[in-house]
Amino acid sequence: MKNLIPGGFPELLPEKKVIENSMKDIIKSNYEKFGYVNIETPSVELNEVLTSKGGDEVSKQIFGLYGLKQGAKDMKEYALHFDLTVPFARYVVEHENELKFPFKRYQMQKVWRGERQQRGRFKEFTQCDVDVIGDNLGIEYDIEVIHTLYNTIKDMFEFLKINRGIEVHINNRKFIDALCGFYDITGESKKNFYELLDSYYKTTEEEFLKGKYNSDGEQIKKGLSNISGKKFEEIFEILKTDISDLQFGDKNLQENFEEVKKTYDSLKSKGVNVVFDPFITRGLDYYTGTVFETFVSKYFDFGSICSGGRYDGLVGDIRKLSGKKGKNYGGVGGSIGLTRLFARLEDSGLLEKNIPLSDAIVLNVPNSNLEYREKVGNLLRDSGIKTDIYYPEAKLGKQFSYATSKNIPLGIFAGEEEEKNNSVKVKDLDNRDSFEIETNDLVKFIENKLKKIL
Amino acid sequence: MKNLIPGGFPELLPEKKVIENSMKDIIKSNYEKFGYVNIETPSVELNEVLTSKGGDEVSKQIFGLYGLKQGAKDMKEYALHFDLTVPFARYVVEHENELKFPFKRYQMQKVWRGERQQRGRFKEFTQCDVDVIGDNLGIEYDIEVIHTLYNTIKDMFEFLKINRGIEVHINNRKFIDALCGFYDITGESKKNFYELLDSYYKTTEEEFLKGKYNSDGEQIKKGLSNISGKKFEEIFEILKTDISDLQFGDKNLQENFEEVKKTYDSLKSKGVNVVFDPFITRGLDYYTGTVFETFVSKYFDFGSICSGGRYDGLVGDIRKLSGKKGKNYGGVGGSIGLTRLFARLEDSGLLEKNIPLSDAIVLNVPNSNLEYREKVGNLLRDSGIKTDIYYPEAKLGKQFSYATSKNIPLGIFAGEEEEKNNSVKVKDLDNRDSFEIETNDLVKFIENKLKKIL
Repeated sequence: MKNLIPGGFPELLPEKKVIENSMKDIIKSNYEKFGYVNIETPSVELNEVLTSKGGDEVSKQIFGLYGLKQGAKDMKEYALHFDLTVPFARYVVEHENELKFPFKRYQMQKVWRGERQQRGRFKEFTQCDVDVIGDNLGIEYDIEVIHTLYNTIKDMFEFLKINRGIEVHINNRKFIDALCGFYDITGESKKNFYELLDSYYKTTEEEFLKGKYNSDGEQIKKGLSNISGKKFEEIFEILKTDISDLQFGDKNLQENFEEVKKTYDSLKSKGVNVVFDPFITRGLDYYTGTVFETFVSKYFDFGSICSGGRYDGLVGDIRKLSGKKGKNYGGVGGSIGLTRLFARLEDSGLLEKNIPLSDAIVLNVPNSNLEYREKVGNLLRDSGIKTDIYYPEAKLGKQFSYATSKNIPLGIFAGEEEEKNNSVKVKDLDNRDSFEIETNDLVKFIENKLKKIL
Repeated sequence: MKNLIPGGFPELLPEKKVIENSMKDIIKSNYEKFGYVNIETPSVELNEVLTSKGGDEVSKQIFGLYGLKQGAKDMKEYALHFDLTVPFARYVVEHENELKFPFKRYQMQKVWRGERQQRGRFKEFTQCDVDVIGDNLGIEYDIEVIHTLYNTIKDMFEFLKINRGIEVHINNRKFIDALCGFYDITGESKKNFYELLDSYYKTTEEEFLKGKYNSDGEQIKKGLSNISGKKFEEIFEILKTDISDLQFGDKNLQENFEEVKKTYDSLKSKGVNVVFDPFITRGLDYYTGTVFETFVSKYFDFGSICSGGRYDGLVGDIRKLSGKKGKNYGGVGGSIGLTRLFARLEDSGLLEKNIPLSDAIVLNVPNSNLEYREKVGNLLRDSGIKTDIYYPEAKLGKQFSYATSKNIPLGIFAGEEEEKNNSVKVKDLDNRDSFEIETNDLVKFIENKLKKIL
């Protein structure tokens, strides 16, 4: 027996898919409430656009396209996108004259990466991004993006009855840059310093102080050639302090600290559970200011479920490729990794909610008339009630089991007797209560019943 | 200046995308009303699954995948899907034990084909499919699928204020097969006969009678070696008759005619504008019974906007590949080609509807407090009103022009004066009426206002 689904490409059964769809609806409605508009970019971009911004690690994971029948000679100049930020920047350059700025958009699409297969890593996954792009964007937009994402995840957890808090950890690259400036950490050392900070949550504090090994097997701390052990511990002490009260003697350090402080205070005032966390740096090198990651409180090993930040160079880089002239817009955005979040929630047993796949089912009662059963079913459908009509002749037990597998709460009997009375019998498939209802009153009855059940 | 978007991959501006999204919502809600449940399959399938069912023409259009950085040596064993029917059949084989039959599902996803670039042909497009798969499926499901699709398109046209009728043209391959049997049209001739019927709407009647040229440049009629000219005209006369009244002397012909007659009558009784049309055959060779195409009445050059049919072998073929044993399910389904339909409607100037991208916008009034403006904006958002907050300092004219570009109907002024009175000024951005409203009453006021405007 052969597996016909390629590894690393997940697919869901209908009863799980309906939960994912509800999560998507909540994301969509929250993004729209905050004034973001939807766009969709093609699944592909030109190779040169993708590789200009992918970084080496991501570049290796890009899926190129070729004509399957034609073979290797028919390689295309475009490949599947690996994220939605690069396509968005390209979209802005492309449609600049037709858009008004600040341009606030959201995108919910699949992206592809040739990741090595492992639990929670997928070759195809859905991302749900919000971003703003504009000229001289104030940090109000950093705040709005984070506020939007926080509200979205809160709504989603509430809907799914997941009683866990969420906290947004924010930092600002300008502040870390200023810190590097103050301590004279430059060049290669600065890169290593960022990498070291980023490793904080992936190791113990003891190991962190020793300096974790990076992907090339070198100790990161050794790469920090211009920081002595003493200096390093001094910086570390600062970073560990409850930084929301910090005051710096240095003017530059203080000024760059103000931006993250302001972001923090504004989010607090809007009810966002925000944490100032200098160990958040975000790997990708296009970030230039605010950076953030979102965690489930007390469940840090759940991983970050939503992250993003400010990037001021991205559009300019893509613009250079196009040869177009224009403003060098900055941007800020964030993303919910829906596929990964869903998989995490499922693995943790938190996706227990049952959502009916239809509201009602018209059963195939022996000796009933097809026309009457269809008339009743279509009457409900016309009122927007999701109604399944069961057509095959089958024992009622089999029909009930079909209804149960779709979580359908109400069964409709429209048999010979009922047809005579121009009525139907409605059965609550959960508690088995049943009601004889005149056809004229049926829609109202079902609507009320559903309100109580759902 | 270089074009950064690959040819044949369409993308929309936000004001068009919101129309496409509304069309998707209407499709989704209709499919669900009829009891279909949503699934999504990966964008890729194994090459052998795709090529087993693609047919040669489609096979040439399949996009294979390889590692972009790694080059031709890194070709994958999976490729992008070219339709949703083959993936669905694979899904059924894969998850057979977890599904209940008849399995009624819908799928709304992108598919990819390496089509030569031309107006209305895309390399990437969205299809919206409904299908039922089951053991011994009755033709009630053929009828239900067509009823579902007809209602969907009717709703969509109504929403878009497109005042054009829709008609579903149905035929049945069993009937055409029986006709071939009666007239002794077999083997290669039968294939040519199907091709000839299919060409009916693409040519004049005179040319049709002469026999249209096929893709190899041969005259199709010449390929019909076992039909004399007289016999051909006799068949053609039958096909041209108002066939809903037809009676056949031949038992086999009459029996196979009954199925399409029953389908026709049942659809009529449900209010579907159905036409019996023996010239509809559908190119793909997996269809075995009912086939249909949907047209805009009196606008046949608009092309078919939705089509499908009954296929009884598809699942079995995919099952063979898997080496699994099990039932040889039959299926019936149809598809709305959303991208193509959208492009057609747009080209015909029929997509005139303006849908607001947000409901309201809080303007940046001079000397106003950021905190108050945000308080008002977030109050609306909390009630589900799509609210944009304009943050940059800019002249009101520029802000109005931003609002207009997003079709936003209501502007909110929350300035110094208003803050003192704990109120705001709401301006109807269309007729410029303006209202001073207390903050406590604001949500209700806006909701009522929107009800009247939208």
